[in-house]
This record gives sequence, C-alpha cells and structure tokens, in this order.
Amino acid sequence: MSAASGGWPSAARLVGVGLGPGDPDYVTVRAVKVLRAADRLVHFAKKGERGNARTIADAITGPDPARELPLHYPVTTEIAVAHPDYAAAIGAFHDRAAARLIEVVEAGRSVGVLCEGDPFFYGSFIHLWLRLKDRVAIEIVPGVTSMAAASARSGLPLGWGDDVVSVLPATLRYADLVERLGAADAAAIIKLGRNLPKVRDALGAAGLFDRAVYVERAAMPGQRIGPLAAMIEDRAPYFSLILVPGRGRRG
Amino acid sequence: MSAASGGWPSAARLVGVGLGPGDPDYVTVRAVKVLRAADRLVHFAKKGERGNARTIADAITGPDPARELPLHYPVTTEIAVAHPDYAAAIGAFHDRAAARLIEVVEAGRSVGVLCEGDPFFYGSFIHLWLRLKDRVAIEIVPGVTSMAAASARSGLPLGWGDDVVSVLPATLRYADLVERLGAADAAAIIKLGRNLPKVRDALGAAGLFDRAVYVERAAMPGQRIGPLAAMIEDRAPYFSLILVPGRGRRG
Repeated sequence: MSAASGGWPSAARLVGVGLGPGDPDYVTVRAVKVLRAADRLVHFAKKGERGNARTIADAITGPDPARELPLHYPVTTEIAVAHPDYAAAIGAFHDRAAARLIEVVEAGRSVGVLCEGDPFFYGSFIHLWLRLKDRVAIEIVPGVTSMAAASARSGLPLGWGDDVVSVLPATLRYADLVERLGAADAAAIIKLGRNLPKVRDALGAAGLFDRAVYVERAAMPGQRIGPLAAMIEDRAPYFSLILVPGRGRRG
Repeated sequence: MSAASGGWPSAARLVGVGLGPGDPDYVTVRAVKVLRAADRLVHFAKKGERGNARTIADAITGPDPARELPLHYPVTTEIAVAHPDYAAAIGAFHDRAAARLIEVVEAGRSVGVLCEGDPFFYGSFIHLWLRLKDRVAIEIVPGVTSMAAASARSGLPLGWGDDVVSVLPATLRYADLVERLGAADAAAIIKLGRNLPKVRDALGAAGLFDRAVYVERAAMPGQRIGPLAAMIEDRAPYFSLILVPGRGRRG
C-alpha cells in the first residue's frame, strides 16, 4: 500500500463498506479510505454486470482489475424465488464466497466488500457476514441508505417529533401491510417489484395513498420521484421504494 | 471561495448538511465539500456549548470563527417540555432563526446548516426547514444515522430479509410501545431519557428484553455498548438508543 493511500485504516482485515445509495458524493470519508487502501475489493454481481456498488467505487478510485474480486451470483432465472432450490443455490453460493474470502484474508490481504447503502440495513452482505463473523475480524462501515437519499431528494422529512417510522417489505401479506401502515406515522416500503398493486391497495385501505411518494433510483442517474398516484406501472424496478413522509407527531 | 475549496457545490444557497453520528470519518464527501466552501456555517447550540454537529465539522475544517453563525436555543430549563410555554419559546426561536437565515441568503451568502446524523431523520433542522422551504431553495445532504452507527458498532444487523424495522420514540405510551414492538421484527428505540424504565417494561411485555442492546454515544468518544439487561441506570443520556436487531425473516 502506498503512503498516498494512507494505508489500511482498519484493525480488521475484512471490511463491509457501505457506499451509499449511488451518488459518489454520498460516500463517507472512511469508505473512501478503505476503497483506496484495500488489497482486494469484492463485489457481488450477476454475470456480465458490474452492479451498483462497483459503479460507485469505480467513480471514487477508477476501475482497478488487479484488485477486483467479483463474486458472481449463480444463474437462477429458471428457479422461482420461493422454491427451495433457489434458497439452496444462493446458500451454496454464499458458502463458497465466504470460504474464498477466508482464504484471501488468511493469505494476508486486506479486503473491502462493496455494499450499496448501509451493509447492515437490508444488505446482501449480511448473508456473508453470518458465515464469516466467527472466523475473521470484520469492520462495518455504515453508509447513507437509499431511504435517506429518497427522503433528501424528494424534499420530504422521513420522521420527526414523536413519529413512528416503519420500514416495511412489500412481501408482507396484504392484511399485515394494512395493519402496520395503520400503526405508523411514516413508512418506507421496500422490495416493491411485483408487489406494487398489493402495496397500492394497502396504502388505500390505511388511508395513506394520497401521502405516498414513489421514488426510483434515488441519487442515481435516471432518478424519478413523484406522487404514487401518478405512477401507473404495475411493477417497480429493483431500485425503488415508496415513502410515506413523517408528520411531526407530538406525544 | 478559493479554488482549493472547489467552490460552492450546490444549486441551492442553503444546505442542510448531514454530518453523521459523530466520527468525522463517517461524514460524506458532499458534506466535506459544503463544509469547505460555505460562506456561513450555522449550528444550533445551547449557550456555552459547541454541540455535536459543530464538533464534527471542527474535526473536518477546523474552527473558523469568521464563518460561524451559532443559533442559541433560548434558556428553557425552568419550563417543562410538555408545557405550552416551552413549545411557544422554541417556536419563536425557530421563527427568528429562519428570518435570520433568509437575510443571510438574500445578502448573497451560501449557508450550510450543520446537522447531526441525517437532517430529515428526526433532525431539529426540520423545524427550520418547515419555515424556510417556501422562501429559499434548500438542498438536503443525507447522512449516516446514529441508528446505522449503533448497528455497525454493535456488530448487529438492523434488518434483513423480510424484517419489519420500526423506529419508536420512547415517548409513546406503554401500551402503544408494546403493540408496536410486537408487530416489528427489529426496532430502534430513540428519545430514551426518563422513559427508560417504561421501555424496559414494554420490551419485557413484548418478549424482546433479552434481544435488546443499549448503545450510548455510537461512533463518538465514550461509546458504550452492551446488553440492555446489564444497563442498570433509570435514565439514559441524550445520545443513546436501544436496538432490537433483525432476525432475517422470510416471507
């Protein structure tokens, strides 16, 4: 490691690096230090794609093939996500990935695992961390979440005063969504995908449809923000969420 | 503004700058740009204190009295927080602060308002923003939350898989706390203060006491992390929260 890089900044050899939602300006100083100094930069990717985390890192340090260690997801397009074979394929992939990273660390290399957003907030890194945490020392560098970026870019505070803010995966059953929306002052609904029509209905049943804002690719190229009522598609892409902004409840 | 500073980075003259939880390494690249280039750096403070946001900014740019614009909270120690006089005093303070910032912006100065954590996630900046948003253009720079820092530093993922994560102010009534804890897979409980005994009881009633972790001053000097069961005080300081980590629920 060169003196210019400042050297490896961590007591741990393996760091889960939160890189924020997409805008390279939303990367933290510590993440920049790790990106510059790591011997290996690991990213998860589908075959033939670089992925969002890698794209952010490239904007900071430039592509550096000698340091890159891509971990390619198995091809699972023919298996339904709910099928046990899917979980088995992904589980085996994470097992192999963890074994590989232990080898790299034991060979004396410092490793940064590139994570979108915050590694410990719905990050796929958690599956790797579960397999590594008792084997190697790990530092987590927290990051700006896509939820925070969506709130900032839409100009809508997520929570204030005594607001209850709930993060709700759209995979919840309809009745559970309605109940949890009813108990929250503000919400971020994630994992929309094909669940969008169910979420629309649930927001309506909870009386929140008119407050809901649809945010796609927050702080990324192609950012799109508007009232959910103006969003006519029945399926939302991966980088999207719905915000129900806070109302500043007191007591 | 000097060329070295890179110039004012924003299309807006007023920026709410999220500075993260405390560690200067958790400040974003964009926040650093704003800190370096702003004509005025505004911070909220109690008389005689510099405050956490100012301390973080000092670590990045050093103290710079010529650019500093402190907004001093009125002395309200003799008024109970729940009393209408308290809200009136704070409201009048925010009115004056907003009027002052409009003057500064209209005089052609660029302004960064220093915010702990993320400005739109329970930030006191929101009270100022409500008064300014229809008067001046404002950019929000999102930041790493104390919740994310607490999760990273305690080594406990906040949410993954299909977890519902709820942010719960400890000011909620006991029955509401129990109900909302029961409907969440993971939680961050904020605004502990004198509500700590109530929160302990509610976590017990919801069957979550043994999973709860107490985090004080996450990513700040004096950081303290441990099982809630080992925390014997009846009152928690300002920079504290309780985490109930995620469990990676599926479906």
